[in-house]
Amino acid sequence: MAEAPSRGLADVVAASTALSDIDGRAGLLSYRGYDINELAAGASFEEIAYLLQRGSAPDGAELAAYRAELAAGRPLGALVATDLPGIARRQRPMEALRTLVSLSSADDPDTRSNERDANLRKAARLTAAQPVLIAAYQAARDGRELPDADPALGVAANFLLQLTGAVPTPRSAEILDTCLVLHADHTMNASTFAARVCAATLADMHSAVVAALGTLSGPLHGGANEQVMLSLETLRLAGGDPLEAVAEGVGERLARGEKIMGFGHRVYKTEDPRAAHLRRMSAELAEASGDDTYYQMSRRMEEVVFATKGLYPNVDFYAATVYHYLGIPTDLFTPVFSASRMAGWTAHVIEQHADNRLIRPDSEYIGERGLHWVPLDGR
Amino acid sequence: MAEAPSRGLADVVAASTALSDIDGRAGLLSYRGYDINELAAGASFEEIAYLLQRGSAPDGAELAAYRAELAAGRPLGALVATDLPGIARRQRPMEALRTLVSLSSADDPDTRSNERDANLRKAARLTAAQPVLIAAYQAARDGRELPDADPALGVAANFLLQLTGAVPTPRSAEILDTCLVLHADHTMNASTFAARVCAATLADMHSAVVAALGTLSGPLHGGANEQVMLSLETLRLAGGDPLEAVAEGVGERLARGEKIMGFGHRVYKTEDPRAAHLRRMSAELAEASGDDTYYQMSRRMEEVVFATKGLYPNVDFYAATVYHYLGIPTDLFTPVFSASRMAGWTAHVIEQHADNRLIRPDSEYIGERGLHWVPLDGR
Repeated sequence: MAEAPSRGLADVVAASTALSDIDGRAGLLSYRGYDINELAAGASFEEIAYLLQRGSAPDGAELAAYRAELAAGRPLGALVATDLPGIARRQRPMEALRTLVSLSSADDPDTRSNERDANLRKAARLTAAQPVLIAAYQAARDGRELPDADPALGVAANFLLQLTGAVPTPRSAEILDTCLVLHADHTMNASTFAARVCAATLADMHSAVVAALGTLSGPLHGGANEQVMLSLETLRLAGGDPLEAVAEGVGERLARGEKIMGFGHRVYKTEDPRAAHLRRMSAELAEASGDDTYYQMSRRMEEVVFATKGLYPNVDFYAATVYHYLGIPTDLFTPVFSASRMAGWTAHVIEQHADNRLIRPDSEYIGERGLHWVPLDGR
Repeated sequence: MAEAPSRGLADVVAASTALSDIDGRAGLLSYRGYDINELAAGASFEEIAYLLQRGSAPDGAELAAYRAELAAGRPLGALVATDLPGIARRQRPMEALRTLVSLSSADDPDTRSNERDANLRKAARLTAAQPVLIAAYQAARDGRELPDADPALGVAANFLLQLTGAVPTPRSAEILDTCLVLHADHTMNASTFAARVCAATLADMHSAVVAALGTLSGPLHGGANEQVMLSLETLRLAGGDPLEAVAEGVGERLARGEKIMGFGHRVYKTEDPRAAHLRRMSAELAEASGDDTYYQMSRRMEEVVFATKGLYPNVDFYAATVYHYLGIPTDLFTPVFSASRMAGWTAHVIEQHADNRLIRPDSEYIGERGLHWVPLDGR
């Protein structure tokens, strides 16, 4: 029989996974048993994508082969290339990515198979393509050609190269790489859960990641990093001392009971371990940029929110200023999140298809009962 | 704390809804308190879409205004019209619809708002557009122009008109209309649940229905009606007496422990009330067609599966032959399901946005723990 409803499925276990684990009280996150702090310090995004999708850390030969698969997955498919300019003119970034990834199934020879080997190939192609689609979108709306990728560079450096046309500094690429590592998977978050609900009907991987992309676009999920930056920009534009503007503006919003984007998390009861890495990278980039205003404003906002509400910053909060200092346009922040999370989504689809059961919950009916339908001329 | 895992969330209440209710033991289904049998006998799809999306049965003026909204929502948007021919050449029907609905947000003036009035307008437009997209896809792959809709006709008749180019008989349109009524909503099925998971991040309605479309495409969900028809066609093509081919073929598959598509349902423990209506319409159309072979094969399959496994046919089973006798191509069966379920999906998004909480379950971690990351040159 159906149990009492749990609003938002909080604390309900919806699936088993060997991909990631969170200890929300201790503030721990791990991917396949490796602590996120070790991974942030020592692993590349390519290694993490391989680890999540294929089950273990790659050795040198495996990593080289995987990097070659990623390089082969970078050129845009024919249908995507044809339709992209019109889409870039008419759809916002996350809308466009939802459409473009859906289109891209036409150019994937494995689209219609859920077999493990086909899923592994698709996971690599989707992971390779996502940052290229973002850069291609940006180039199209700027009316530029998409710069060629450099097969000698990794995912992060190629993204910055194709986004801006200039080879990034090694440290910029390294910082973005760490961001991609930090965002790659996070247990049963809403977009990953949507991907698994979709995949559990034995729908294909493209359908599942398209569902995830739409889900990530919501302001209560991936859309939060963009909201953080817009809020910092608004407070700075108000004039006066930006740190005082933060204290005053955030204080007023908290007093009105409004939510401050980038703070709090359903699972973490202490600091999100990813936030500490992002704060440190934000500080470094701020100092290097010669204008640390947004970083200082973020610090002040963190203090005010913690003092008033006891809430910690989540992964979205310092990601905003990190992406800003890396020169990424604000409306591409959520897309950059998606370029990382694609590794996790695809790994979850592989895991779901390998041991599938339809995800079909119950609902509690709260409407009227026992009505009788009266034909139109009697109403 | 997290509870014990429930595989597939079976019997877990994931949301409250006033849209539909199932009594799986008694074999009852109702929409907003009206029994499905009364609705199948006396309501049009337009009345059902209005009932689900707007909360009550429309009076004459309300229905006329809603029908006018639907008529205004039929012309294809500019971006969809431009990209459709290439998509129809390269993507299967459900892949194409996923892409086309995602594209269509570009031409919807309310895309970016989740306000109730905007959601109501989008729900009407999406419901109006879905059958037109299917007919336009069919016309494009046939290299024909899409026939114009007739504003005097309803959703079902216009669909058959635009799909085939010929005005359907009143009885054909009436039968398809009843099919659309029967498929419009069904509590927390997988595609509806995916739509709600997506909408609960405050993602927009287009994102949510795109997630639902991908989810419906799976063979364990909407894809089942197409599988039923393919299985009937395969058994008939095998030659010999088709009824014996059914008894033998299905018997062999059951003996091998294989699943027979179109039978059994997680929620119904007795006959799905929708199946009885579809069986009756299949019988009527079979007789009118002069060749009732597929209907008789379906009856035999139902007998064999019930005798062997005690399973009842579900909504997909007789829908297959009904659509077949209506002249709908087999690979458009799941799209036709989507044209009906669009009414329910959009109503669920409206309901979710009106009283939202993020849907973010927990997961059970079943992988390794406490590993230490070794840099690449040490692996």
